[in-house]
Amino acid sequence: MSRKGLLIVISGPSGTGKGTICKELLSRNIPNLELSISVTTRKPRTGEIEGLNYFFKDKTDFIKMIENNEFIEYAKVYDNYYGTPKQYVFDRLNEGKDVILEIDTQGAVNVKNAFDEGILIFIMPPSFEELKNRILNRGTETLEDIKKRLRCANKEIRLSSYYDYLIVNDSIRSAADKIENILQAEKYKMKRVNIDYLNFEEE
Amino acid sequence: MSRKGLLIVISGPSGTGKGTICKELLSRNIPNLELSISVTTRKPRTGEIEGLNYFFKDKTDFIKMIENNEFIEYAKVYDNYYGTPKQYVFDRLNEGKDVILEIDTQGAVNVKNAFDEGILIFIMPPSFEELKNRILNRGTETLEDIKKRLRCANKEIRLSSYYDYLIVNDSIRSAADKIENILQAEKYKMKRVNIDYLNFEEE
Repeated sequence: MSRKGLLIVISGPSGTGKGTICKELLSRNIPNLELSISVTTRKPRTGEIEGLNYFFKDKTDFIKMIENNEFIEYAKVYDNYYGTPKQYVFDRLNEGKDVILEIDTQGAVNVKNAFDEGILIFIMPPSFEELKNRILNRGTETLEDIKKRLRCANKEIRLSSYYDYLIVNDSIRSAADKIENILQAEKYKMKRVNIDYLNFEEE
Repeated sequence: MSRKGLLIVISGPSGTGKGTICKELLSRNIPNLELSISVTTRKPRTGEIEGLNYFFKDKTDFIKMIENNEFIEYAKVYDNYYGTPKQYVFDRLNEGKDVILEIDTQGAVNVKNAFDEGILIFIMPPSFEELKNRILNRGTETLEDIKKRLRCANKEIRLSSYYDYLIVNDSIRSAADKIENILQAEKYKMKRVNIDYLNFEEE
């Protein structure tokens, strides 16, 4: 059964360790799993290779790509643009590759809006769990401190309803195991199975 | 984090080996996983224990339970009734148990209609895969033979759109592995995670 690949979006608040989780996943040499390659306007650093680490473009070309709707999502970070190229990713998916995108929470929501089949995984820092325990145990932190921390996280958390899965990053290995698990289970989803061959017309 | 259990419905055409797969799953002693117990009007066989194998009821009581809407689903097979008791299953789920239902395809659809959170897994006999290969390879079976076989399966297959997952039972062990996989992944679903504690009101 030939199979279209899955687009796996690994996202969450900054500092959750999502980059490290992606590295761990890729180091496991899971068949057909690969990292997406972004387009950027920033200059290549020593050792970075075009088409391997990034697709490097100048600003004019990047803006042309935006106008032509060639990105699944893009963002401007300080003076540089970063974007996920639609054609490249869709080609890889059609070849049966599972493509990982590591991206911030707003970018992930943009992906979901552009490509509903994308699987959004929200990585939650373990500190949220600790925080919850502190609240539940009426611990040493003042209520004011707790509220302040929660307020900062609130913006990100509000986006969480766009996500399909939530994983607490209590350890890199365990978080990667859980993502592998999700990747497998998603392949058994009825909606992804081609059962056209069973739909014979009655005569 | 206290967690409501999952209702896992294992279903598919007769002869797919779904009973054997459930036995294999239960033999693995997966924490908190248990088989649902049905209510039946059939007489207990030697060794069968009330509340362990079945809840045994007489016909009058069973029909009263139907009238009181006390079943998630029920069916009449020859002269006997079999039903899945709502209260019993929901109690187990609320206690955090993951409950397996092994049931025919029409029963599974009734479960989904009554309890949308149920996870429906369609077990496909491996012969369908073989069949597909025969069709694709323009093999020895006549088109008439193939159509006849497909027509028999068509009724069941049409119900497959109600299902969440599809698993081909190529081996009991592998099918059980896949169901374990699904069970794990479903626990990371965002919709099942209680993040109320993060929803602090802004002041």
